[in-house]
Order: sequence, then structure tokens, then C-alpha cells
Amino acid sequence: MSLIPLPLERLLRLVGRLPGLGPRSAQRVVLHLLTQPEALHDVVSQLADVGSQVRACNRCGNLSLADTCGICTDTKRDDSLLCVVEGVADVWAIEKSNVFKGRYFVLGGLMSALDGVGPEDVRIPQLVERVNGAGLGEVIVALPSTIEGQTTAHLIADRLLPLGVAVTAPAKGMPVGSAVDYLDEGTLAMALSGRKAVA
Amino acid sequence: MSLIPLPLERLLRLVGRLPGLGPRSAQRVVLHLLTQPEALHDVVSQLADVGSQVRACNRCGNLSLADTCGICTDTKRDDSLLCVVEGVADVWAIEKSNVFKGRYFVLGGLMSALDGVGPEDVRIPQLVERVNGAGLGEVIVALPSTIEGQTTAHLIADRLLPLGVAVTAPAKGMPVGSAVDYLDEGTLAMALSGRKAVA
Repeated sequence: MSLIPLPLERLLRLVGRLPGLGPRSAQRVVLHLLTQPEALHDVVSQLADVGSQVRACNRCGNLSLADTCGICTDTKRDDSLLCVVEGVADVWAIEKSNVFKGRYFVLGGLMSALDGVGPEDVRIPQLVERVNGAGLGEVIVALPSTIEGQTTAHLIADRLLPLGVAVTAPAKGMPVGSAVDYLDEGTLAMALSGRKAVA
Repeated sequence: MSLIPLPLERLLRLVGRLPGLGPRSAQRVVLHLLTQPEALHDVVSQLADVGSQVRACNRCGNLSLADTCGICTDTKRDDSLLCVVEGVADVWAIEKSNVFKGRYFVLGGLMSALDGVGPEDVRIPQLVERVNGAGLGEVIVALPSTIEGQTTAHLIADRLLPLGVAVTAPAKGMPVGSAVDYLDEGTLAMALSGRKAVA
């Protein structure tokens, strides 16, 4: 006799593989849901509903209820500026900061030699097509400061520069509110080599 | 125009209220599921399946595929010993430690004056009924070392002692592997007042 019923064990493994969850937190969430039938019903039905209603915007890849998302159809935004991001969460974060008024392009992932993820797997051909002949002034490549992020950013620059568009990346350096002695060496090196005149 | 579609926003709030998750981790999990349709399908269908298959054991409250769970139907266990726990996760934890061979009783919660949770809400009448006339030698009340846990444990002792059964609780003190200077004051006080002869 095994202690945990097999289908429950399988569900625990599945939930434990979700990003940010582990075996312990999966157990907490799943046991909470199984002992609260209304909560379980709400989660199952809302997940299924949202999954069937929400789709990727056919222009930028953001999540949307319509074929084209609210940002892409907003006529007040700057058509000459395109911001390339890894995922939908990045669109939300930049929108919340309220400093960017151009358009977005969501790659949906990063290239990774280790995991065998190539340029086609992360919508780089679609990005080239989107930029080609669109009359953009600048493409901001806002990808993570990691090996995968920077490899992907360089390949994007290689592909877009021949199209006659400026390709930029966000500044790298000290985060606001950070103390020098708490910065990792990589950030410190970036911040020092990118130093600017104070006034 | 709101950035996040309304049903998606509602789903994020729902998932963010699950135990151990917050707004940020809910966003990660939900976006992962919405951008990976197979993962979403698996989670939805397995949650619904397990929710319909698994039920509370009619004897102890543990989760089970049958009306009575494998621990309650196991004839090799000690019928004179009953361990009262808060939740199913506690049954799993004690079973993994392999030191207890009696039966269990899952309360499903703890009494809480603040939240208005009384003895009836946590199956204490059912526990009294289970113990009454069952010829048990000892009931181990293994509840959390918190105000709610200890209040509940005391009420259980008050209700069970008149039935002529011994009521015990796990020892409180230093966890294995702990250092004295890292213990909180409460634990240290418990450990010192409960000191034992070394040999």
C-alpha cells in the first residue's frame, strides 16, 4: 500500500514542476485545493475559461481577449519605437513603469545553446518580418542580463541592423536603491565601465 | 483600456490567494500555463480528475481513493494508539518518519478565537465520538506549537480525559541539528524547562 494515492502523486509532481513551485509548496497548494472543494472548482473553471478566452496578440504576442491586443490597437502610441521583450510579464512590468509609449514584440523565450533553442524557436524570423519595411526608428532590445538574454540580443542586433534601424538596449548598472558593497562583481564592473559625468 | 484582460486579472488574484503563493509567483505560474497550452490542459484535467476521485477517509479524514484509507484498513497497525493532527500533510510527514504505527485522526483545522473557528468547525465532536468506547490506550495530540495549536490541544485534552484515555503531546525543545544561539526565546525556554538527565 502506498501512502499517497497514485493520481494524487502524479498531480503533486506536475504542480511541483511549475515555475517558482517545488515539492513542498506544490503539496501545500494541492492539499489546500483538495480539502476546499469550492476553491478547487474555482481554480479549475477559471483556468479553463481564461485558457480558452485569452490568446497571443497576432501582432506583438502579448496576451489578449481579442486577436490584436489593446497596446497594438492604441492609436496614441509611438509607431517608430519597438521594444523587444522575452515574455508577457515583461510587457506588464514596462507598462507599469509608464516610461515607454512605443509598441512591443514578445519573443516568447530566449535562445539557449544548452537547451537546443534556436532563433526560429523564439520568433526571431517573425521579428525580422515585423521590422522589415515598417519604417521604425529604433528597436529597444530589453532582454535579461544573462548569457541567454545577451546572446539573443546580439543575434537580434545582427539581423536587424542591415534593415537600417537603430538597435539599442537598456542601460546596465546599479539598480536604484542599491549599495555598492552589496553589488555582485558583474554588475559593479558594468556600472564602472559605463560611468557617466555627474554634471 | 486596461492592460491585463479582466478574466485574467481575476484568475491572477485567485491563484495569488493560494497558500504559499503571492501576486508575483501567481503571475509566473499563470503566464507559464497560458503560454504552454499542453501544461495548462494537464493541470486543469488532473486537478479536476483528482478532485473527483480523491475523498476524505470516513474514519480518519486522510485523503484516499476509497471510502476508508489504507492506513485505517491496515490490520497490522496498533489500534490502541491514535494520533490527532491538523491536516493531511501532517499524516504524510509522520508516516515518512516511520516512527508511528497507530491510527490517525485529521482535524482539518485549528480552533481560532480571532477567526471565529470553534470546536465544531474542526471535527472535535467527531474525535470525541471516535475515541469514546474505542478502548484506546493513548491519544497523541500532535498539533503545531502555536497559540491556535496549543489552544486546540488543551480543549482536546479536556474533552478526552473524562473518557479514561491517556492524552499526550510530542516533546518540545531543540530541533535536531540546531545551534543554541540560533534558537528563538520561546523554544529555548521550552527546551530548558523540559531538560532531561543526560545519562
